[in-house]
Amino acid sequence: MIVTETKVRVYYQDTDKMGVVYYGNYARYYEIGRTEMIRDLGFTYKQMEELGIMLPARSLKINYIKSAYYDELLTVRTIVDTIPQVKFPIKTEFYNEKGELINSGETVLAFFRSRTNKPVAAPKFFIDEMLRMFNR
Amino acid sequence: MIVTETKVRVYYQDTDKMGVVYYGNYARYYEIGRTEMIRDLGFTYKQMEELGIMLPARSLKINYIKSAYYDELLTVRTIVDTIPQVKFPIKTEFYNEKGELINSGETVLAFFRSRTNKPVAAPKFFIDEMLRMFNR
Amino acid sequence: MIVTETKVRVYYQDTDKMGVVYYGNYARYYEIGRTEMIRDLGFTYKQMEELGIMLPARSLKINYIKSAYYDELLTVRTIVDTIPQVKFPIKTEFYNEKGELINSGETVLAFFRSRTNKPVAAPKFFIDEMLRMFNR
Amino acid sequence: MIVTETKVRVYYQDTDKMGVVYYGNYARYYEIGRTEMIRDLGFTYKQMEELGIMLPARSLKINYIKSAYYDELLTVRTIVDTIPQVKFPIKTEFYNEKGELINSGETVLAFFRSRTNKPVAAPKFFIDEMLRMFNR
Repeated sequence: MIVTETKVRVYYQDTDKMGVVYYGNYARYYEIGRTEMIRDLGFTYKQMEELGIMLPARSLKINYIKSAYYDELLTVRTIVDTIPQVKFPIKTEFYNEKGELINSGETVLAFFRSRTNKPVAAPKFFIDEMLRMFNR
Repeated sequence: MIVTETKVRVYYQDTDKMGVVYYGNYARYYEIGRTEMIRDLGFTYKQMEELGIMLPARSLKINYIKSAYYDELLTVRTIVDTIPQVKFPIKTEFYNEKGELINSGETVLAFFRSRTNKPVAAPKFFIDEMLRMFNR
Repeated sequence: MIVTETKVRVYYQDTDKMGVVYYGNYARYYEIGRTEMIRDLGFTYKQMEELGIMLPARSLKINYIKSAYYDELLTVRTIVDTIPQVKFPIKTEFYNEKGELINSGETVLAFFRSRTNKPVAAPKFFIDEMLRMFNR
Repeated sequence: MIVTETKVRVYYQDTDKMGVVYYGNYARYYEIGRTEMIRDLGFTYKQMEELGIMLPARSLKINYIKSAYYDELLTVRTIVDTIPQVKFPIKTEFYNEKGELINSGETVLAFFRSRTNKPVAAPKFFIDEMLRMFNR
């Protein structure tokens, strides 16, 4: 299992007139968490794109448990518990400064070859690094 | 069943470097569809807030089927097939200009009283109007 | 002079915790106005990109006069009063439902050739259409 | 003079189909820089709001010099060189990872009392802290 923690600060632009983080902004935070998870694996999503691999989202599920407020420093916990094949499911959890779970969800990405725009198996270097992390 | 159709144009700001609508922007389109669905019922979400009722999201599910491209005029179909109680599930479907289903999902909202910040049953005027629409 | 009017509805996602349109969201509305102005000229910005012309922003000035509120239907007035050369200055004004001027500003775009990523003169078909509109 | 440096990472959501940071997203980065500048003064914008002071934007100017690319770690330099009265001008500069100036601009905020929604002089504790920083 791979667990990456990233901090995100709630800025004015993230709030709506209810005074809390707008429900539609969590998907952006989910992506920040996933991007930093890949960086923790030792490469970047940018490098994967340069190698001709894209990871578009196939589905997204979000459970809104508690609100997040302006200026809070949230912890985004990004969790991978399955070695990806073509599909790459990633769980995300948000914790507020009190340590309360305020939001949880799952994104399913898929490996695509940019050139053909077709699904492909996860690249070997990616799987190898994941296995190394899983077996740590 | 209530079905409302709204058009949304894809602008530059909605795209990402893959050249398609950013996966995280659909939640905003979902909200546009829901807002116009409530307007079609004969009142506005703004009026509901003025009456002390809020409708925060409890969950969101999105299936990404095909990409949406810059300058496309998408059709957002917002579907209510259940009379809400405290929870208010709303389905959303997106069609591109060729009429292809490109995205589908569901948001579950909940009726909250602003003053107490507690869940409440859907207000009677809201249910009545829904029943009238369902029985048309 | 070319004047195009476009309507934009203020949705939840456009507001911030002050309960008004977030100051940073006007640039998106400005772009909507400009995009519809080009459409009014009889072609689309998308077509210009397909012809190898891009129009990145060189500068932006915004004056915030009054706030815009949730669910208001704003009028975006996009004004071109100069035939563009390499630079393309475009004025924008916002009016609320009472007809009050609430925001005004100017974006300066520049014509760029995509292939070389260098500034170029505005294409002849563009200038011709503008002249036709100016002389109407 | 007060100079605060903040880092912002360019994520997928910040890019557009030109493959660079969307022109309208810089205002959000400007606000991140200003928020962290106030935090560097020893208090937070959130605390100012709790004291009944708001700082809405009155104007914004942005010069786009070079593009910012996906996954770059930008440096936002926020500069205050005037003690604010009712108006509070703040300069912002962006540098890419090569140290090149890619964007510069100025936001003018104004001190407002939330209760009356009227302009007020900058609060004494704010000015005092600024003077202390200026005289360091």
